[in-house]
Amino acid sequence: MAQLISDRRDIDFNLYEMFDVQELLQFEAFKDFDKKTFDMIINEARNLAIKELLPTYEDGDKTGVSYNGDGTVTTPDSFKKAHKLYVENEWTAPIASEEWGGQGLPATISGAAKEYFSGANWSIMAYGSMGAGTGGMIENFGTQEQKETYIRNLYSGKWGGTMLLTESDAGSELGRLTTSAKKNDDGTYTLTGTKIFITCGEHDLVDQIIHPVLARVEGAPEGTKGISIFIVPKYLVNKDGSLGERNDIVCTNCEHKHGLHGNGTCTMSMGSKGKCTGYLLGEENRGMKIMFRMMNGARMGTALQAQAYASTCYLYALNYARERIQGKDLSDFTGPSVPIIQHPDVRRNLITMKSYVDGMRSLIYYLFKNIDLAKASKDQAQKTRATGMVELLTPIVKGYCSEVGYDVCVQAMQIYGGAGYCQDYPVEALTRDCKIVSIYEGTTGIQSMDLVARKIPMENGDLFRAYIGEMKQTIAKAKEITQLYDLAQKLDGAVDGLAGLTKKLLSTIMSQDIKTGFAHSVPFLHIMGDVTLGWMMLWRAVTAKEKLEKAGKKDKSFYEGQLHTANFFISSLLPVTLGKINSVEAMCDAAVTMDDAAFGGL
Amino acid sequence: MAQLISDRRDIDFNLYEMFDVQELLQFEAFKDFDKKTFDMIINEARNLAIKELLPTYEDGDKTGVSYNGDGTVTTPDSFKKAHKLYVENEWTAPIASEEWGGQGLPATISGAAKEYFSGANWSIMAYGSMGAGTGGMIENFGTQEQKETYIRNLYSGKWGGTMLLTESDAGSELGRLTTSAKKNDDGTYTLTGTKIFITCGEHDLVDQIIHPVLARVEGAPEGTKGISIFIVPKYLVNKDGSLGERNDIVCTNCEHKHGLHGNGTCTMSMGSKGKCTGYLLGEENRGMKIMFRMMNGARMGTALQAQAYASTCYLYALNYARERIQGKDLSDFTGPSVPIIQHPDVRRNLITMKSYVDGMRSLIYYLFKNIDLAKASKDQAQKTRATGMVELLTPIVKGYCSEVGYDVCVQAMQIYGGAGYCQDYPVEALTRDCKIVSIYEGTTGIQSMDLVARKIPMENGDLFRAYIGEMKQTIAKAKEITQLYDLAQKLDGAVDGLAGLTKKLLSTIMSQDIKTGFAHSVPFLHIMGDVTLGWMMLWRAVTAKEKLEKAGKKDKSFYEGQLHTANFFISSLLPVTLGKINSVEAMCDAAVTMDDAAFGGL
Repeated sequence: MAQLISDRRDIDFNLYEMFDVQELLQFEAFKDFDKKTFDMIINEARNLAIKELLPTYEDGDKTGVSYNGDGTVTTPDSFKKAHKLYVENEWTAPIASEEWGGQGLPATISGAAKEYFSGANWSIMAYGSMGAGTGGMIENFGTQEQKETYIRNLYSGKWGGTMLLTESDAGSELGRLTTSAKKNDDGTYTLTGTKIFITCGEHDLVDQIIHPVLARVEGAPEGTKGISIFIVPKYLVNKDGSLGERNDIVCTNCEHKHGLHGNGTCTMSMGSKGKCTGYLLGEENRGMKIMFRMMNGARMGTALQAQAYASTCYLYALNYARERIQGKDLSDFTGPSVPIIQHPDVRRNLITMKSYVDGMRSLIYYLFKNIDLAKASKDQAQKTRATGMVELLTPIVKGYCSEVGYDVCVQAMQIYGGAGYCQDYPVEALTRDCKIVSIYEGTTGIQSMDLVARKIPMENGDLFRAYIGEMKQTIAKAKEITQLYDLAQKLDGAVDGLAGLTKKLLSTIMSQDIKTGFAHSVPFLHIMGDVTLGWMMLWRAVTAKEKLEKAGKKDKSFYEGQLHTANFFISSLLPVTLGKINSVEAMCDAAVTMDDAAFGGL
Repeated sequence: MAQLISDRRDIDFNLYEMFDVQELLQFEAFKDFDKKTFDMIINEARNLAIKELLPTYEDGDKTGVSYNGDGTVTTPDSFKKAHKLYVENEWTAPIASEEWGGQGLPATISGAAKEYFSGANWSIMAYGSMGAGTGGMIENFGTQEQKETYIRNLYSGKWGGTMLLTESDAGSELGRLTTSAKKNDDGTYTLTGTKIFITCGEHDLVDQIIHPVLARVEGAPEGTKGISIFIVPKYLVNKDGSLGERNDIVCTNCEHKHGLHGNGTCTMSMGSKGKCTGYLLGEENRGMKIMFRMMNGARMGTALQAQAYASTCYLYALNYARERIQGKDLSDFTGPSVPIIQHPDVRRNLITMKSYVDGMRSLIYYLFKNIDLAKASKDQAQKTRATGMVELLTPIVKGYCSEVGYDVCVQAMQIYGGAGYCQDYPVEALTRDCKIVSIYEGTTGIQSMDLVARKIPMENGDLFRAYIGEMKQTIAKAKEITQLYDLAQKLDGAVDGLAGLTKKLLSTIMSQDIKTGFAHSVPFLHIMGDVTLGWMMLWRAVTAKEKLEKAGKKDKSFYEGQLHTANFFISSLLPVTLGKINSVEAMCDAAVTMDDAAFGGL
């Protein structure tokens, strides 16, 4: 039977053949695990995803959540059982610390599990897992009392979590937010304001929801410097841990969205009765720092989300292409009609999709591995480097995967032809779902500014040079393999092109042409994404080539698939990247020098 | 007030400054028109589109059509009045011959009007205008009696029209169709079969619908050679022209689609009672030829559809970018927050969208002008060349505009940020609507095969050389203008690159590597689209530059906009095209040589 959501063979290839996840077992943090446990965990995730979550996907899209006008939000009926199983089987906080009820898993293994859940029904996963993010913030920044009060229930999924950032006039520019907090004599704060676009802000799957809320304490500085973060529970929590009084935070609307219909995107109103109680998390005016720590994890999560949609769509489209009979083989017009996978254009489309799906998976797992090393390694240099690599590449995985992941979904619709435009096949809804990823948790434009202005200059550029150095290592390894020499040589040229372009772009944004520089930051992000994916492709090819000789029949086909896909990506897609490098290199200033009026439409 | 749907100044620029539509007035076919009439016609189209059609757009998307289970289809309430006005104001057959009740307008002027209608509510236009396509087929191939019976009511919009091609197992491969026709003693035929994806197949806006149906006469050859075309009216027509007996053709379903919710996409069942009467159009087994004549017009129409969605989305997003305050100016972080159009990345996004919207408009209008010349010119060489240019570039406008038009819509959502993902703004629905265009009337893959295997080799390649020659003429003209010399030089390189690549691709598909060749046909189509748009951009720049000196303030800004946009397209986007040329040039065979199993998922 055809595989669904993710190709399990490829997940294992990433975990054990490319990134040697077993290396993690040497560390104290992961010493209680072994490969057998990892395998079992991923198998269980796959089973739960395919047997329980996936069947609820259509209900999620077609029924969707409903806002009932009285502050309550109803999820589709089929979600109840799936959510219950997700929680009962302890998938809610896989990487969180065991001390507070998490599973303590490596991010790499958790990532593989989440790839299945995200592709099966991301909404269910979000309802069950957002509490882990909220709990993590409290674990990192909360008082002992706050930890005792909230974390276990958040990690266990008994309570839900959210993140209240955006207001209607404060989206990308959080400094404009107007939600206010007034300190009370008992040390609590009273909050007033309205937040929009709140994922899982209200729903009927849990009894209690804990909202971290960005707000400004009265008298605090303007802009981001005056933002604090508060814990605002839906129900106040009694001393004994039971739920007390209903807090004055209410859902007043759910958005009608392009996709993600099964997941409530809520407007949350605080203080309409003047009685919204919040508890300061960390210190006053440090809200942005605390929030950003969580945000980086969220951005990794969105990358995985896009990758999972793309992988799911790819496997659906691949299976359809194998089964749908239409058209003659180009070399035999008098023969029978053939499955459309025989048509060169469909194959080009499929191998393009495959190269992005595989490449994104490797890039994301590579970063998960670095997260694990940063957490568990005893070698300080390794920890620092791993942390830096995650920092550097977070805007790439978020910005790039969200956009190419979406393109893969769109191409899946194209493979289905007219049927792809109809709601009978899931690719239609998955494509709509995927569109959110390039928008939320910071648009691609925001990611590109973070990349160019903040991440690449980190450590005086040493981090970026280390990243280039890692790519060069893979290239050197590939050059030693005759069959891969040409591909390695081509990627080498692209890496050099990227390095040269980076210098030029950084010097441009440091000059008076700063605006011209930033007019090319998104194309630059795409270039760096392409080159990074080229690296992953070559890494795959090197790994596959080493294994090919001794491989059995099925593995042989798999490994040869890696070589073909790497060849395609580097020979057919990377030349376009070189064109993009020339484009940014030209540093055309037309976008910034053109008069506003000349854009037309007036 | 901001303009909606299309920038009227740019339409006039195309009609009168680039393509000299007034030249058409010299021809007998258009001698009764003048510029004033043209202007009035476009003004009226714009008024009707904006005042009557546009307000029904949201109802079309949100209410949608409903299939009632009894063979009837209900359109949204708001459509009734809009449709009535569209018909009463005689927009249903603008270019059809006046002899049969059409308006006899040049395609160029009709195109400008349809750009407004398509962007306002394409569904309303389709309900009112599809009869013109059906009527055109009958005018070209019908008997005198058939003409008398059907054409006037189709052109006037009193009756609706359709096109019944696709079956569930015969989509791109029409040769597999199984709908059968049995000849009766009275010369009529009895049809049996089921067609799917029938646009406007059934609805409540007209009393009668005329269906042209592809079917196979019993005993006819297999494949496309045995396909005939029949006129199958919903109601048989009495001798006196009144409606008679209900024919045995019934709608049995409407698709639930990604977009175009206001337009019924019907399953049509013929002969469930064994009494579906059809009338042969033309001769037996000539159905494909007749159908393709209409199909070319339909493909031009789809290109305009994509362009209109893109233009509409661009103007919405542009206006939003001018009004939405968010973030500081990059050169003044302590100043006030600014409209997002001040941000370089938003400007890059907008100028990218603008270049595609403007370029597509020019390309499509250029082809409309050629259609007009082909019809009206007395110079046989000019007629032949114009006809050929339309033939050659039809797969480009269909294949390329459908894809870049969609990209523009997606980018518009991105400019709106989170709001773009919500259904509160029309860009969300327009993006869903636009996705159909790369799928129906032949997918992009089909267009690319038509381009490479049929169109480019036409006239032994003379036609393609003439197309290259026309681009070279514009380039030569631009090289005489100092400010445009560099841009002209760059485009020249891309044109030469395209010409060289074309030779290589054609020789590849003529060799044993035919499959490798066709694995690059879609990328080739994109390259040719890019270069053709570059030509249009340079043409715009030459025209604008010539007018700039004597222009008033508002026109000056418009013309400078053309120069900036051309500069952006040629300096920033065309380098990527050169990369694409290198990509196809490399002619990587990985997609075709990879084992089916190596695609994974098994």
